Amino acid sequence: MALILAINAGSSSLKFQLLDMPAEKLVTKGSVERIGLSDSIFTISVGGEKVQEISSISDHEEAVKGLLEKLTSLKIIHSLKEIEGVGHRVVHGGETFNDSALVTEEVIEKIETLSELAPLHNPANLVGIRAFREVMPDIPEVVVFDTAFHQTMGSEAYLYSLPYEYYTEYGIRKYGFHGTSHKYVTGRAAELLDRPIEKLRFISCHLGNGASITAVKGGKSIDTSMGFTPLAGLTMGTRSGDIDPALIPFIMDKTGLNATEVVNVLNKKSGLLGLTGFSSDLRDIDKEARRGNRRAKLAIDVFIERIQKYIGSYAAKMSGVDAIIFTAGIGEHSPMIRERVMEGLEFMGIYGDHERNKVIGEEALISAPHSPVKVLVIPTNEEVMIARDTVRLSQQHQKI
Amino acid sequence: MALILAINAGSSSLKFQLLDMPAEKLVTKGSVERIGLSDSIFTISVGGEKVQEISSISDHEEAVKGLLEKLTSLKIIHSLKEIEGVGHRVVHGGETFNDSALVTEEVIEKIETLSELAPLHNPANLVGIRAFREVMPDIPEVVVFDTAFHQTMGSEAYLYSLPYEYYTEYGIRKYGFHGTSHKYVTGRAAELLDRPIEKLRFISCHLGNGASITAVKGGKSIDTSMGFTPLAGLTMGTRSGDIDPALIPFIMDKTGLNATEVVNVLNKKSGLLGLTGFSSDLRDIDKEARRGNRRAKLAIDVFIERIQKYIGSYAAKMSGVDAIIFTAGIGEHSPMIRERVMEGLEFMGIYGDHERNKVIGEEALISAPHSPVKVLVIPTNEEVMIARDTVRLSQQHQKI
Repeated sequence: MALILAINAGSSSLKFQLLDMPAEKLVTKGSVERIGLSDSIFTISVGGEKVQEISSISDHEEAVKGLLEKLTSLKIIHSLKEIEGVGHRVVHGGETFNDSALVTEEVIEKIETLSELAPLHNPANLVGIRAFREVMPDIPEVVVFDTAFHQTMGSEAYLYSLPYEYYTEYGIRKYGFHGTSHKYVTGRAAELLDRPIEKLRFISCHLGNGASITAVKGGKSIDTSMGFTPLAGLTMGTRSGDIDPALIPFIMDKTGLNATEVVNVLNKKSGLLGLTGFSSDLRDIDKEARRGNRRAKLAIDVFIERIQKYIGSYAAKMSGVDAIIFTAGIGEHSPMIRERVMEGLEFMGIYGDHERNKVIGEEALISAPHSPVKVLVIPTNEEVMIARDTVRLSQQHQKI
Repeated sequence: MALILAINAGSSSLKFQLLDMPAEKLVTKGSVERIGLSDSIFTISVGGEKVQEISSISDHEEAVKGLLEKLTSLKIIHSLKEIEGVGHRVVHGGETFNDSALVTEEVIEKIETLSELAPLHNPANLVGIRAFREVMPDIPEVVVFDTAFHQTMGSEAYLYSLPYEYYTEYGIRKYGFHGTSHKYVTGRAAELLDRPIEKLRFISCHLGNGASITAVKGGKSIDTSMGFTPLAGLTMGTRSGDIDPALIPFIMDKTGLNATEVVNVLNKKSGLLGLTGFSSDLRDIDKEARRGNRRAKLAIDVFIERIQKYIGSYAAKMSGVDAIIFTAGIGEHSPMIRERVMEGLEFMGIYGDHERNKVIGEEALISAPHSPVKVLVIPTNEEVMIARDTVRLSQQHQKI
């Protein structure tokens, strides 16, 4: 049995999944939250049951030690030697990483350098990486970047129409995020359609609290709705997506906030939350909309409108589309949103199937049998992608 | 003969056209530039010849007096009584004006109030309006707004995904611009296609130094690429169009500029100028691109890419499109840009005709005979729209 730990470390949290490879079977998953506080919460699932423990966990190293100890003491695994690799999600790989990488001191330094582009995420991801290096120094670690899949975009897509030196000197360009998810679902869609990915044009809609749409042609990302940061693009739970950039000084002037504070509002108090005034969660909003709440209806209308426009723009960019994919929380679980997105796109060859579209959280074809464009629901699985790359690159490690 | 003066007043300039209505025939046109300086330049065309005079013109009133004096002394008209109305272009009508309006003190006050939304333009437009009220107090004046045509957009299109109070308290929403142009060319396109505008879906591409695309359904603007200001949307001569809004504090941090200065860079040093580093003029850029200049080629690629994506998004929004219109400097005069925009959009029913597309500056159908979507070149004429509305509303004036 080759077990791989897939890790997603935040500044005060560490989420994990233990996967059995190459079967891609989930063995257990859980999280450590509130690291550094006296009431840290450790959660792990054992035989389908959630086990939770509250205690003081002072740092990520202690969290890792605790996790490993639990894996054996709860008899999830017999010995830590069964773990053959640890894969870490890292948000920003900049232009440095167009693929996952085996962790070395050099790789860590590069991720540190890229922290400027993701000041909230990369340093937190690194804390997780370092904790495992301390606790399990002999095990190969692999980093998997949210941005790497999008490094195939052409310069006409990734460059902003700004002074060119902003790109060469400051690294200002579109990077895109959710790459691991878009890569997973498009790969899976090609399998399900039983057609070679090289010949397919996908529009992948990752609709969760964060949301992005990617145009994938021949298995490569050629455009994506997020930008230099994950703020751009679609209307999201709390993020504004695209706005007129001239609004920032105007809002500063009106509210007295500084530019960073305004962008904070755009990230945390905008999107569905800003439009409705009461929730960033589409389930709550849908409920209120059905009760007649005007702003809840409006927020859903805006959310749908932006998705449809991105689908249209990416179809134009690829001279057509073979399949649309819905994934992530909303994409997997909201037939209403999917149905409304498909409505009106018949001119592009998209015909939904009302019955098929009732599926929730499972892989399914939801387009009508005669629909030239196939529409699929595919639950995303970033951890499987992390585990796959960890296996692939760990093998290189052993060769070295 | 009913003559109408169509006026476009800037802070130190005043452009005019004298039109014979209802024939819509241009009688003369010209401009006064560098108003307030000792070397003001007055230009007017007389019998096809440009006449220019340099003298000191201290303010807009003096410019108006000079213009009226020249119209008779150069024998362009016999008497000022032939002028039956003056129409003014005004940039921002906010949510107050969804149509042109006869100038009254109340209208002037409203335009003043709206200056906050267009601080560079509305006050300058008002100076022109006031100058005519002083010099020709008995003549009806009409204001024609760049934004009015877009007031038919639905809230799902005009609202940003921002805290809702930003809309209700500060008027933050998408207004759109170039409305007079989009209205003119779509009206003209319906005439040329000889089909009722109520049944047509147009995508109107106004591509000049400023550029915007509008989705017009049943004669009404339902979406447009410019936003709260004319900065948003497409890549333009010197404007960035859409960017990740989170870039503003990042650029401030890197360059030491404040937010207003950064937005100034986005307005004046970005777009084609920023990408190429040498010109905002597509003719220069095309020349350099043909010589192999990499950044010139790149700028054209970016310019095309953004246009195609907006066309795709508006087709999605209208569930298809019946005709695409190209207008304004680049739209009327660049077969290369038009051809490249049409390329790859066959899946939407757009087929260009290489020979027909050679047309420059004239009305023409440039799609192939079998193309389900018609593609038209239509030179824009905002002055004719101003004159039409001036006639229409002046008649109301006389009734009163």
